Amino acid sequence: MTGPENVKLIIFDCFGTVVDWRGSIIEDLSKWGEQKGLSIDWALLADLWRGSYEPQMGRVRSGEIPWTNLDDLHFESLQAVLSELHAPELGQLDLMHINRVWYRLNPWPDAVEGLERLKRKFVIGPLSNANVSLLVNMAKFANLPWDHAFSCELYQHYKPDPETYLGVCRMMYLDPEEVMLCAAHNYDLVAARECGLRTAFIPRSTEYGPGQKTDLTAEQEWDVIASDLIEFATEMGA
Amino acid sequence: MTGPENVKLIIFDCFGTVVDWRGSIIEDLSKWGEQKGLSIDWALLADLWRGSYEPQMGRVRSGEIPWTNLDDLHFESLQAVLSELHAPELGQLDLMHINRVWYRLNPWPDAVEGLERLKRKFVIGPLSNANVSLLVNMAKFANLPWDHAFSCELYQHYKPDPETYLGVCRMMYLDPEEVMLCAAHNYDLVAARECGLRTAFIPRSTEYGPGQKTDLTAEQEWDVIASDLIEFATEMGA
Repeated sequence: MTGPENVKLIIFDCFGTVVDWRGSIIEDLSKWGEQKGLSIDWALLADLWRGSYEPQMGRVRSGEIPWTNLDDLHFESLQAVLSELHAPELGQLDLMHINRVWYRLNPWPDAVEGLERLKRKFVIGPLSNANVSLLVNMAKFANLPWDHAFSCELYQHYKPDPETYLGVCRMMYLDPEEVMLCAAHNYDLVAARECGLRTAFIPRSTEYGPGQKTDLTAEQEWDVIASDLIEFATEMGA
Repeated sequence: MTGPENVKLIIFDCFGTVVDWRGSIIEDLSKWGEQKGLSIDWALLADLWRGSYEPQMGRVRSGEIPWTNLDDLHFESLQAVLSELHAPELGQLDLMHINRVWYRLNPWPDAVEGLERLKRKFVIGPLSNANVSLLVNMAKFANLPWDHAFSCELYQHYKPDPETYLGVCRMMYLDPEEVMLCAAHNYDLVAARECGLRTAFIPRSTEYGPGQKTDLTAEQEWDVIASDLIEFATEMGA
């Protein structure tokens, strides 16, 4: 069976697919840093911080450390990055304010309209490595109209572990072919397809900044390929 | 500290507090039963079925059976109730249709407006013994604008176990005094208050039908007491 005819639930990767994490971090922290008189290269901080994302989750995946929420992995790697950048010593409240910049990310310009249309026809939610608190606060900040936050925290596994995609199906009493993942990252869709889910690709060619070289195009024939979430809604008849 | 000044998240009991389970079950299944030519006393079925709710959760709480979602406890007790009522033999699809009547419950007339107002100022979600699938489908059916479904499934404990109320606080990185439970049942508020949460009582004097004798009034000085969810929103400045 092919095509998205039976889809009841659409889950979305968040960082990069729905929200512009890099642009938002730079904008938010540059403003705040200026008020604080901090001279830190926030673009470099964003890139180094995000660079620690995969290795940090890898420590959980390998069993080196027990399940740890992304908020806490972020906090740990933030301190390492600040030290690498020779940033001035910061107090606990400032560190928490920086760490919670992930709660204050802006959606891509097409995201809210696309999701609102999709929500009329489907159940929609993030399937993100972010913990529930991060996702719920981000949704409030960015006006993302989720029906439910399918955080990886609920499954105690990080994507692309199959426990995450299949955990959503089981929790919603749906067959994998009734669930579709929409993502800007081919590796995420590969893992979802291996679990039997439907797949949709949206390119986000500036997620990692102007020099991005990965995920510029669909690397497989995904069930749907659209230029953004508004076109995706149209493709899905929503 | 008293008063709801620091509240950031309001969680709601669902069955009875937000949705009229008894009236909805009777209305939905009476219509369907007529089409099917089934003569079953649906009001009696609703009462017996709901009567099995506490004992069924008690089996999980005592450890007699492992964690089991409410959908599955409902399915088991539905079969016992139908047998007690000497109902005609029903196929699996019909049984599933009846069991999913819990996905098709109507909100009390004040619920959607009250929740929409509260959502502008607070994070809102159910904290219900219903599993995630039930809560998300019920919200779609009844237009309940939750930010997230804090189902007891996420904590593998049924209310009024403290793991549920404290599980929400931990998941949202909030202190108990930043979280308020709104419920039509005094026992639920007692348990939440023991965990340090704020409390709000809404009476629902016909939840169990015309002869209801319990929870007609607030049995403690809860932080907020309101006649319905619209008045509750007003009390909360939303």
